Amino acid sequence: MEKLEHIGIAVKDLAVSNQLFEKILGAPHYKIEEVTSEHVNTSFFKIGETKIELLEATHPDSAIAKFIEKKGEGIHHLAFEVSDIHEAMQRMEEQGFTLLNKTPKRGADNKLICFLHPKTTNGVLIELCQSIEE
Amino acid sequence: MEKLEHIGIAVKDLAVSNQLFEKILGAPHYKIEEVTSEHVNTSFFKIGETKIELLEATHPDSAIAKFIEKKGEGIHHLAFEVSDIHEAMQRMEEQGFTLLNKTPKRGADNKLICFLHPKTTNGVLIELCQSIEE
Repeated sequence: MEKLEHIGIAVKDLAVSNQLFEKILGAPHYKIEEVTSEHVNTSFFKIGETKIELLEATHPDSAIAKFIEKKGEGIHHLAFEVSDIHEAMQRMEEQGFTLLNKTPKRGADNKLICFLHPKTTNGVLIELCQSIEE
Repeated sequence: MEKLEHIGIAVKDLAVSNQLFEKILGAPHYKIEEVTSEHVNTSFFKIGETKIELLEATHPDSAIAKFIEKKGEGIHHLAFEVSDIHEAMQRMEEQGFTLLNKTPKRGADNKLICFLHPKTTNGVLIELCQSIEE
């Protein structure tokens, strides 16, 4: 893993939480992005080399809607940057971790992503992410 | 806030989780520290400019033991570095956040710390921390 790329936080209302995290972090979000395939609206804050990604569900079937229904608002996942997601996915699987998607999928912020099942990672939902070079 | 100083993760068995996070992060923990006042054993991993702090309860009254009993293992808190914790605590309180301790307390890794109540921060337990210069 290269670095902690971002922390994903599930929120009910993106506009309200954008104001809240601006107060906490001392600087506003710099981007809003909808990821239609995941049924989420996202916003991004920068703090040092890491980002905070707020996630608001746009559909009841969204994983974020289900997470909030079950656990309430809060930290949803940690995303680590990798230079080669295919290699990282293979290495993780060989080490006994369970991949939630068998091929990388397209996430927010121009990334290829793959999640590891939290049952194999101490209850922490971990995302591997690789920036897409265009 | 200067940067994300560390992410605290509640675990049941530090020895087991140290091995797990060594696999995930690709490097071993570099330090073990007991914080007797908080009834926890901690271990630290470095990833870029951020640390991962694993927390294991050493007593049933520990906040970590209660967290795991209620929610299971997983992410416990996010810690942000501040240059002046007294100033940061005052600013947070003025902005409507609830401080869990009214004066800074001594945490692991040579820090003065203060927690913000998660009810005022989107369900995220946030720690402010300032390094103690000696």
